[in-house]
Amino acid sequence: MRCRICGAPAAINMRQHKLALCRAHFVDWIPEQTERAIDHYKMADRGEKLLVAVSGGKDSLALWDVLHRLGYAADGVYIDLGIDEGIGYSGKSRALCESFAAARGLNLQVVSVPAVYGASIPDVAKKSMRGRRKPCSVCGLVKRHIMNRICREQGYAALATGHNLDDEAAVLLHNAMTWSGGYLVRQAPVLAATRPGLARKIKPFCRIYERETAAYALMQKIEYIYEECPYSEGSSTLYYKEILNRMEEDRPGAKLQFYLAFLQAKDQGLFAPGASGESDLHECAQCGQPTSAPGKCAFCRLWENATPPGLRPPSP
Amino acid sequence: MRCRICGAPAAINMRQHKLALCRAHFVDWIPEQTERAIDHYKMADRGEKLLVAVSGGKDSLALWDVLHRLGYAADGVYIDLGIDEGIGYSGKSRALCESFAAARGLNLQVVSVPAVYGASIPDVAKKSMRGRRKPCSVCGLVKRHIMNRICREQGYAALATGHNLDDEAAVLLHNAMTWSGGYLVRQAPVLAATRPGLARKIKPFCRIYERETAAYALMQKIEYIYEECPYSEGSSTLYYKEILNRMEEDRPGAKLQFYLAFLQAKDQGLFAPGASGESDLHECAQCGQPTSAPGKCAFCRLWENATPPGLRPPSP
Repeated sequence: MRCRICGAPAAINMRQHKLALCRAHFVDWIPEQTERAIDHYKMADRGEKLLVAVSGGKDSLALWDVLHRLGYAADGVYIDLGIDEGIGYSGKSRALCESFAAARGLNLQVVSVPAVYGASIPDVAKKSMRGRRKPCSVCGLVKRHIMNRICREQGYAALATGHNLDDEAAVLLHNAMTWSGGYLVRQAPVLAATRPGLARKIKPFCRIYERETAAYALMQKIEYIYEECPYSEGSSTLYYKEILNRMEEDRPGAKLQFYLAFLQAKDQGLFAPGASGESDLHECAQCGQPTSAPGKCAFCRLWENATPPGLRPPSP
Repeated sequence: MRCRICGAPAAINMRQHKLALCRAHFVDWIPEQTERAIDHYKMADRGEKLLVAVSGGKDSLALWDVLHRLGYAADGVYIDLGIDEGIGYSGKSRALCESFAAARGLNLQVVSVPAVYGASIPDVAKKSMRGRRKPCSVCGLVKRHIMNRICREQGYAALATGHNLDDEAAVLLHNAMTWSGGYLVRQAPVLAATRPGLARKIKPFCRIYERETAAYALMQKIEYIYEECPYSEGSSTLYYKEILNRMEEDRPGAKLQFYLAFLQAKDQGLFAPGASGESDLHECAQCGQPTSAPGKCAFCRLWENATPPGLRPPSP
């Protein structure tokens, strides 16, 4: 197999694109494809200040690398969730983000949940509503809250996340299997900042296969954490990724077609305008962030229930 | 494993319902469940004259048996498609329908496509647009045309088909994977006769697993054709059935939850009113049946292209 562009031995063959590329052309192809997605979905303008949510994994570090190479002003934010679970998960991933940023002279903000808010994610999950909330649900809520706060306070135009095509297709299949109307209607490459106090969210890798982001990270010699988060075991996203991997094997391009057909159908008006289930937002009485809950937002209530009175989230 | 009702040895265990039943209670449970679906989805009233589309397979013969046992006035219609393919497929399935009807004193109408219209389905497929139409697409079109004509001419209130939950879930998954808006919006247990000249279509087995219709046919000693239609090999419905079988194995009830969640989301207004893509119908200039095509309907055009001038479909 040879590189379609230069004829050198190919480093990767992408069956779904009928495209084989050598290392040098592949590591340029990924930024080109990313740029196309950014333009196509109107994710960001070149002059805007972006914040990249980095976890230490291949996708988010590859995204930061690509945005930097494309000339975007992109800072990073790492949220230390305090997850150890015998493998030092948070410590390892934080160190990888810090050395990635230092090697490239990039600006990384680190927010330690245990240091700032007084408890780790697993602790809060255990104490919330007598342990009824799962760590992943707590984690999502906390990350959204903190990232939105940073964007707001420091004037970032958008928050970029490393979600790749496999992530998006798996979530989409999950939402289609459960016909979760609100989630289906809201799933998109860009979530506009429709309300004051809410940051725009963008997913520049939404058309890039996970296999390709992994290959990019390896070829660019990006050191990333190989382990999945210990809490992701048995998650529905991993389950639907496996189902989709089988379909992709049977029909190369199945994942991409699935995701693009969804976006097209949505653009063409498949869903009813009222089906998003979004309700009016107001400011949380405690932290000031937008919330649909009466009084305090879910983040502030979570923390109130799970931590001792002395360790409450800082007020705005 | 024991029957939940009488404690006798169970003949079937339905994991998704956490229900095991003996033969006697299972063959009563199926009609009860069918009646519930008929009532719940307002498929038919007891006094209405129904037409059951029978193919000789387990689902349609089991359905006719159940409707008969429930006291519905249900005639059958068998459409002989002229499919032989070395196994005498049409001949065998026709004979099974005829002996089923004769043994129960039921009224079966037989329409032979080669005898009435001058060519078999495989022949028409080969000759249509230089073979571009596949036999399954021709078959669907021809069956819809003939069944609708019979309902119209003979005053049947509704056409009942043996589609089971596995069929419906597989078609739904296919439509969700391709995000085929019109198909998604129109898929339902009942297709109302929204236009004059169109028969109502009902699927009383839409919540019954294929495994259960097969078990019912066996326990009721219904002789049916075991072979799938030779043209169904490699069909997308069979493919998605396999995918769903895997999900069902991992999570019993997955198929049923998928289908019911879809119907609920649709009821709750997930889809935009205009997304069905339905266009206005008028009468076909040749046969008089409703069509959205200008001039003649797809059935009349198909036959015109595929058969010699002497063998044209009869005019109304």
